Amino acid sequence: MIIVPEKEIAGLLGRAEAFDAVEAVFAAMSRGDAYNFPVIREAIGHADALYGFKSGFDRAGLSLGLKSGGYWPGNEAKGLTNHQSTVFLFDADTGQAKAVVGGNLLTALRTAAASSVSIKHLARADAKVLGMIGAGHQSAFQMRAAVEQRNFEKVIGWNLHPEMLSRLAETATELDLPFEAVDLNRLGAEADVIISITSSFDAILMDAQVTPGTHIACMGTDTKGKQEVEAALVARATVFTDEIAQAVTIGECQHAVSAGTKSEGDIVEIGAVINGTHPGRSSQDEVTLFDGTGVGLQDLAVASKVVDLAVEKGVATVVDF
Amino acid sequence: MIIVPEKEIAGLLGRAEAFDAVEAVFAAMSRGDAYNFPVIREAIGHADALYGFKSGFDRAGLSLGLKSGGYWPGNEAKGLTNHQSTVFLFDADTGQAKAVVGGNLLTALRTAAASSVSIKHLARADAKVLGMIGAGHQSAFQMRAAVEQRNFEKVIGWNLHPEMLSRLAETATELDLPFEAVDLNRLGAEADVIISITSSFDAILMDAQVTPGTHIACMGTDTKGKQEVEAALVARATVFTDEIAQAVTIGECQHAVSAGTKSEGDIVEIGAVINGTHPGRSSQDEVTLFDGTGVGLQDLAVASKVVDLAVEKGVATVVDF
Repeated sequence: MIIVPEKEIAGLLGRAEAFDAVEAVFAAMSRGDAYNFPVIREAIGHADALYGFKSGFDRAGLSLGLKSGGYWPGNEAKGLTNHQSTVFLFDADTGQAKAVVGGNLLTALRTAAASSVSIKHLARADAKVLGMIGAGHQSAFQMRAAVEQRNFEKVIGWNLHPEMLSRLAETATELDLPFEAVDLNRLGAEADVIISITSSFDAILMDAQVTPGTHIACMGTDTKGKQEVEAALVARATVFTDEIAQAVTIGECQHAVSAGTKSEGDIVEIGAVINGTHPGRSSQDEVTLFDGTGVGLQDLAVASKVVDLAVEKGVATVVDF
Repeated sequence: MIIVPEKEIAGLLGRAEAFDAVEAVFAAMSRGDAYNFPVIREAIGHADALYGFKSGFDRAGLSLGLKSGGYWPGNEAKGLTNHQSTVFLFDADTGQAKAVVGGNLLTALRTAAASSVSIKHLARADAKVLGMIGAGHQSAFQMRAAVEQRNFEKVIGWNLHPEMLSRLAETATELDLPFEAVDLNRLGAEADVIISITSSFDAILMDAQVTPGTHIACMGTDTKGKQEVEAALVARATVFTDEIAQAVTIGECQHAVSAGTKSEGDIVEIGAVINGTHPGRSSQDEVTLFDGTGVGLQDLAVASKVVDLAVEKGVATVVDF
C-alpha cells in the first residue's frame, strides 16, 4: 500500500496536473464512465464535528475510493486545520487497498481546478477583470487557478469582513496583478468573471448587480441552506455544474429549483461542454454560471495523479499491507 | 498513522477480544452511545465487483471510521480472497486519519463474535447440540466461537453441497466434538442452538422443523432478497438483532415484515439484553432468533482493539502522515 503524507502533496501536484485531472473526470462523468456514490455526512455528536465521505468510481481512469474526513471546529485551537481530509484508493481489479493520501491541500487544489475548468470552457475569451467574493483560505487557490485561463488585467474583491481582503491583495501581488477592494455593485458591474467562495447562508451577489456576458463560478455552496447569489441570477443565467443531482439538492441551484425558476433539465453538466456535446457559452451577452458543488470523483482524480507522481519521483512510502 | 496489515491480525486478535469488543458495541448501540451511518453498496460495473462502506461512530469507545471493500468474484483465480475489506479509523477529537487495518480476518471474527454474543445471552443454559447450516469459509469461525458459550456435546450439520461438510467435520474434530451430517428434519429436531451461515436466496430451515426452546442465529442474510429460514419461523420466534433498521430491510426479518407477520416493534436489539433492559429468553420453550445483519460498528470495534494490541505489543507500523 502506498502512503503519500499531507506534507508531500505540495511538492508533487501542481495546478496544471490538478486542472487536467479534474477536467478529465468531469468529462468522464458526462460520458457516463464515472459516477459518484451517495454522500455520507453526519453530525457525530462529539467535538461539534461533521464527518463523512464522498466516493465514486471512474471506469475510464480506474480510480475507485473515497475521501473521508470532515470539519472539526476545535482543531484550530490545537494548531490543526479544521477541515481534515484523507483519500483512500482501491485497486479496481481486486478491491485491495492501494493508497492513502493526505487530502487537505488536494481539496483546495481540486476545488480551485473546478472553477478554473469552468472559466476555460465558459468565460468570454476577452475577459479582463476577475471579481472575487470571499477572502478565506480557499480564495487564494481560486485566484491562482483562475488567472491561468484568461489574460486578466485586474482583480477586484469583496469580503464580509474587509480586514481579510489583505489575502486577496497579497495573492494578486504574487500574480503581478493590481487589486482593488470594491462594493458589490462595482464588483458586479466591472468583473467579467466572478468567483464566489464563501460559506454564506444568504445571497451576497444580486441579479441586478451582474452585467451581461459575465461568467460566475459559485464554489461555496455545498450544503442545504447555503447560498451565495440571488436565486433570480441563477434563473437568468445559463447554468452548468459538476453534478446535477448535487446542484439541485445541496448546490447553489437548490434555491432557484425550490422557487420553480430553474428545473433540473435546464442545468448542463460541465463535462458535456468539455466533451463538445454542448456548445457552452452561446453569445457575448449570455450570463453563464457554474455551480461547483464538489464531488468525490474530483478527489479521487487528483489523489490518483499524486500517487502516480509519488511513484514516478520515488517519494512514495510503500508499506507492507 | 498506524498500519496493521492483514497478516498481523491472526497474531493479535483472539476470539475472546473480538467477543468483548462486539458485545460492548452492541451494548453501546442500545444505550444510544453508538450508531451506524447509512450503508453504501454499489455494483461498480467493473470486474463484476460489489463495492461499498459500512461506517459509524461509537461515542463510548470513541471509534470513528469505516470498513471499505467488497466482493470481487474474479479474485480467487488470482490467488486472492474474493471478499476484500480494509478498516479505516479516525481520531474522533480531530478527524485525522488514525489507522488502516486489514479487514478480511476481522470480518470473519466479528461475524462469529456476533452469533456467539447471541448464544451467550439467548440460548438455553443446558444447550447440548449445535446445529450448523452452511459449510463455507465462515462456518468454521462460527462454530469455534459458538462452542465457547455452552457445554456442547455434539455438532450436527447440513450443507447444500454435502461434499463441503468436511469443513464442519474437521472443525468439530479440532474442538474435540463429534460431528454428524444430518438432514434438515433431524437438524431442527435435535439441535438446541442452530447457526445458519449461507448466501441462500430461499428459506432452508422450515418452521415445522424447529423444536421449542431452540436458539437460532441467522448470520447469512445481509442483502435484499436473501433468506435462510421460513418467514413463519421468524414470526413464531422472539427476534433479536444487531440493528433493527437493517434487520427489517436487508436482514432475515425482511420477509416476515413484508408478510406482515412481524413488525419492527416486535424486534429487540441484542444490546438491550446485554444491558439488562430486556430480559432476553423468557422460558425454556421459547424459540429465540438472532438476526445478525452485520454493522460497521462491529468492524470499528474489533479494528480499534487490534490497533491497541498492535501498539501494546510493539508490532504496529507507524507511518509519517
